[in-house]
Amino acid sequence: MLILCLDGHQQLAKAMSKALQADVLPLESRHFPDGEHYFNLPADVRGEDVVVLCHLHQPNDKAMGLLFMARHLKDMGARRVGLVAPYLAYMRQDIRFQPGECLTSKYFAELISDAFDYLVTIDPHLHRYHHLNEIYSIPTRTLHATRIIGEYLKKLAEKNPQQKLLVVGPDEESEQWAETVARAAGCEHLVLTKTRSGDRDVAIHIPDVEKYQHHLPVMVDDIISTGRTMLRTAEELKKQGLNQPLCIGVHAVFAEGALSEMQQGPIADIQTCNCIPHQTNQIDISYLLTPAILELVLECESQPVEPAL
Amino acid sequence: MLILCLDGHQQLAKAMSKALQADVLPLESRHFPDGEHYFNLPADVRGEDVVVLCHLHQPNDKAMGLLFMARHLKDMGARRVGLVAPYLAYMRQDIRFQPGECLTSKYFAELISDAFDYLVTIDPHLHRYHHLNEIYSIPTRTLHATRIIGEYLKKLAEKNPQQKLLVVGPDEESEQWAETVARAAGCEHLVLTKTRSGDRDVAIHIPDVEKYQHHLPVMVDDIISTGRTMLRTAEELKKQGLNQPLCIGVHAVFAEGALSEMQQGPIADIQTCNCIPHQTNQIDISYLLTPAILELVLECESQPVEPAL
Repeated sequence: MLILCLDGHQQLAKAMSKALQADVLPLESRHFPDGEHYFNLPADVRGEDVVVLCHLHQPNDKAMGLLFMARHLKDMGARRVGLVAPYLAYMRQDIRFQPGECLTSKYFAELISDAFDYLVTIDPHLHRYHHLNEIYSIPTRTLHATRIIGEYLKKLAEKNPQQKLLVVGPDEESEQWAETVARAAGCEHLVLTKTRSGDRDVAIHIPDVEKYQHHLPVMVDDIISTGRTMLRTAEELKKQGLNQPLCIGVHAVFAEGALSEMQQGPIADIQTCNCIPHQTNQIDISYLLTPAILELVLECESQPVEPAL
Repeated sequence: MLILCLDGHQQLAKAMSKALQADVLPLESRHFPDGEHYFNLPADVRGEDVVVLCHLHQPNDKAMGLLFMARHLKDMGARRVGLVAPYLAYMRQDIRFQPGECLTSKYFAELISDAFDYLVTIDPHLHRYHHLNEIYSIPTRTLHATRIIGEYLKKLAEKNPQQKLLVVGPDEESEQWAETVARAAGCEHLVLTKTRSGDRDVAIHIPDVEKYQHHLPVMVDDIISTGRTMLRTAEELKKQGLNQPLCIGVHAVFAEGALSEMQQGPIADIQTCNCIPHQTNQIDISYLLTPAILELVLECESQPVEPAL
């Protein structure tokens, strides 16, 4: 097995390389002045299973590279080419709200399914689709970072036993998510509930607030984009006399200015999984990815292999 | 017939609309903060021939849009979807100089051929390929701007009969190109020849230089990218006592800083065809495109139509 890192996320590629005992392929990659991709892969990939790693945040330039390199690897004789996209793009447009809206999720899935043999991703935005196989025609694995984040928190708590953790879900919808993380971390969790009094006033209610005065609140979300939800929740926690929270995100999307805005708010620290490379990456998801890759390769193995182009 | 303008080149879309008597489709097009495309096409395209216009300079973001919209148009019931790319991307990598180089020309052609029913382009970079059908599996038309540039120069000369024009080819390779333009313009042309004296010295020789002292030299090239060839040639013309030339390019690529560098040189004016939208656009190529589009639609018409997806 070989790994091709297409998005410059070398740190994750190296971690995967270790876990999979697979070499990271050398790749010369640049753009011509007119924006065209140039790739040179000085390696023998004949008969090999190649895992292409690419996180697909700001996806268009990367996606063209993926479509090129999947074909190139097959042309060069690779046996199978899988895509590991820790952050998967184009999951947002899952319905036509206007009849003329372009259903990019479906078309992107078609392009990727045409080019790759399988897909592994972490916590994609599954809203109206319940499973990636509704749009992807190749074998897929959807992984969840909750357990890995919980284990990370457990280690954090072990380092500082005086500091009790409290996983905080910002709303009722986050109940299951917060609960799973807290269980893996071996700590308590609570979910904020909104109380509507009148038409406009929405008070956030924290049950048993006195009990948690000295805990470190930990907020967990799948994507940190504008960071508004986390900031608002952190302000609410402060109002109610709780400590400044630790904010953990799976996907470090961070819209422009979001990180500095969060850093200026009542937030103790911001940490993310290394799905999208970012200065806040603290939680390594490589060991979540590798069993899924091995499973999928075995699954493909049991399918007849099409001859290389 | 309907026109969809995907690169914001509304001026060319309007000119084509007039020539083809085809409406330009309304399109809402933007990017989400994470770089994903959003398109909304509030129009009925069922049973229609749709011409998608997109120039493909800085191609990756645009190409993803093309791959999405071709699928979307077919999903919406369009009869046929053609691509008019006045500037075609990914023609550069037409051979593997290194065994591991990604043959982007071939893979790009595959992606476009999968998505569109035909392709029209102007003066693509055909170097090792002699015809687009070596890589494109759909009907294609390769148009040349030489005649249109010649006719433009003819009109220019008619406006100012005192000012005689002289088409200048910067090297022997431009002989045929310069000759075609000059013939259409009804003016003379000359081609600069390099004379090597010793290992290093390359003198540019201009035959009959005295004869052209009062002509307006016109340099024509397919792509103006760095502008170095034109600048160097203009300096040579100046040295030999000729007037500052008019520089004409088919594709206004203009690498960063190239335009201002050229403007500071001994150049009278810089004008381009409107293949790529640019402040230097002066020469309208819409009436070159439209007959080719109509021809291709007729050619497709004689083929069996596949049912819409």
